[in-house]
Amino acid sequence: MPYTIPVIPPLARELEPALRAAINDKTKPPGSLGRLEEIALRLGLMQGTLAPALDAPVVLVFAGDHGLADEGVSPFPKAVTVQMVNNFLAGGAAINVFARRNGLALKVIDAGVAGPLAAHPDLIARKVLPGTRNALFEPAMTPAEVELCFEHAGRLIADLDARGCKAVLFGEMGIGNTSIASLLMSALTGEPLETCTGRGAGHDAAGLSRKLEILRRVQARHGPIADPLAALAAYGGCEVAMMAGAMLSCASRRMLVMNDGFIVTSALLVASRLDPAVLDYAVFGHVSAEGAHPKLVSLLGGRPLLSLDLRLGEGTGAALAWPIVVSAADFLREMATFESARVSKR
Amino acid sequence: MPYTIPVIPPLARELEPALRAAINDKTKPPGSLGRLEEIALRLGLMQGTLAPALDAPVVLVFAGDHGLADEGVSPFPKAVTVQMVNNFLAGGAAINVFARRNGLALKVIDAGVAGPLAAHPDLIARKVLPGTRNALFEPAMTPAEVELCFEHAGRLIADLDARGCKAVLFGEMGIGNTSIASLLMSALTGEPLETCTGRGAGHDAAGLSRKLEILRRVQARHGPIADPLAALAAYGGCEVAMMAGAMLSCASRRMLVMNDGFIVTSALLVASRLDPAVLDYAVFGHVSAEGAHPKLVSLLGGRPLLSLDLRLGEGTGAALAWPIVVSAADFLREMATFESARVSKR
Repeated sequence: MPYTIPVIPPLARELEPALRAAINDKTKPPGSLGRLEEIALRLGLMQGTLAPALDAPVVLVFAGDHGLADEGVSPFPKAVTVQMVNNFLAGGAAINVFARRNGLALKVIDAGVAGPLAAHPDLIARKVLPGTRNALFEPAMTPAEVELCFEHAGRLIADLDARGCKAVLFGEMGIGNTSIASLLMSALTGEPLETCTGRGAGHDAAGLSRKLEILRRVQARHGPIADPLAALAAYGGCEVAMMAGAMLSCASRRMLVMNDGFIVTSALLVASRLDPAVLDYAVFGHVSAEGAHPKLVSLLGGRPLLSLDLRLGEGTGAALAWPIVVSAADFLREMATFESARVSKR
Repeated sequence: MPYTIPVIPPLARELEPALRAAINDKTKPPGSLGRLEEIALRLGLMQGTLAPALDAPVVLVFAGDHGLADEGVSPFPKAVTVQMVNNFLAGGAAINVFARRNGLALKVIDAGVAGPLAAHPDLIARKVLPGTRNALFEPAMTPAEVELCFEHAGRLIADLDARGCKAVLFGEMGIGNTSIASLLMSALTGEPLETCTGRGAGHDAAGLSRKLEILRRVQARHGPIADPLAALAAYGGCEVAMMAGAMLSCASRRMLVMNDGFIVTSALLVASRLDPAVLDYAVFGHVSAEGAHPKLVSLLGGRPLLSLDLRLGEGTGAALAWPIVVSAADFLREMATFESARVSKR
């Protein structure tokens, strides 16, 4: 059974005049909440209501390993993926701290981690592969494995939807996955690899140059690829494929897609090439300090809320931007109007 | 008894190497939390500890009226100051929504509102004047009234300190007070009034031009003023003077000064001309869409965390930036180290 992209409903544009009026009726000079007014408007259009609410938000950290990491594209060893997943489950990583602070649930999805992971209430085991194959020598995944990622993602989001979740914050972990994001970006946007490649978790100039040389060989091995699913099969990874599928499923269910850094955005790029309407449901949490992220965000027409020189991933940028997004929904639901508060309009 | 500026202790620079080591020991690539690492470092230096905490944070909204508002410098009538204070006390304004969302207490200080206000548990009554005098014709305040504002502020902050408060988020309300901020900025920085003046709560081009013409007449009436206390006496207002005093008191007690928009920043400018060390304890929450704010922030060497086209005041920018600042303190206290989480460093 071939994978069917879920249908994404259009925004409720018919509500736009009423939403704008409701925003302007709040006790503040018109427009004075700036970008929060834009977000409030879009949340209303997404949810088809004048009182949008972002109930039961959850950070999903998708984890996977990459055969390509054996080539030394990252300064960290591959074992760090498993180690960091265990760190997430123990509550000690940056994303745990920010999720706790901002009242966000956090689940880790084993989409394709190379090592075994012990069962844990916050671990969702959906391992499609124990790490992808090395894209330097062969396709990282088969088309059937890519499809399986999308199917798992669809069920995962359906389950969250059934529990009343209105927003998913996307995060990821996978040693080597900035390289995968660079390859996907170059394939699907036509930008040269140099424009798509950055220092990842901390390369120096020589490390960046080696990484770029390896990526050029990978790209030459596979040749030009314009189809998003074919690009996922060629380069991987399980976590990126599962995120792309989850984003499409979120949008199909009118759930907010909270974007994060470079790797999450590469999944959003894949999703948007399958159905551009996914972008109607996406908010760009931040623009990172990872080399190609600003360019990729701009190619997708995104306007990031934060620019704090983050380059960690894990969903940290999405989690830090979350209070702004939820405050936009809050002001529209909770603020007094000029009439209710008896404040003079002029 | 003339006002004595409280002594501001230096940052605990001797802790800097230990703080940097602690930040780099956390399970993340070095530097990957970007601006949050800078803030964590500074909070440690401010509090003199490797485990800074921002307990009992409070938004203080300082309210005051301005005789100059009678000249039509704002498109809103003066009565809106009282109406908005009542809106704050009823919980219906934007700052109430953001404070609730981010776990911030909120108090309103009647520093000099023109009308009477009923007693309320969240209202701190410190009315120095029922609105300042009209600076177009006479000094807005006497030197003794300015001093009284600083004295009230000192006691207010001492009281918060005694209750364990480690951070004050500054906000304000006062019809006409962008004009006061422009006059203070021009006097104390030497920038021409055109550079210091914006559209406030919503002037069109003609309104801005009228506002600027009035401000030029006020400036001509008083002549050049370089002394910060003299500038406060000439132009007002009670809320600005009280904020400047409160900022100095916060810094003297190693409490964080969370800066907001143009008017709050004009108070920080005044405070910094009394003792530049106040800036060591200040974090710039956001840069607003109000005309002169970016310039003023830059003159003070501030790097705002947010740029969301806000232009509301009330402390809204400070409150929206708060989760980022507190997340910086959190990650330093709460994240696992490479050793504790058994994550490979390279």
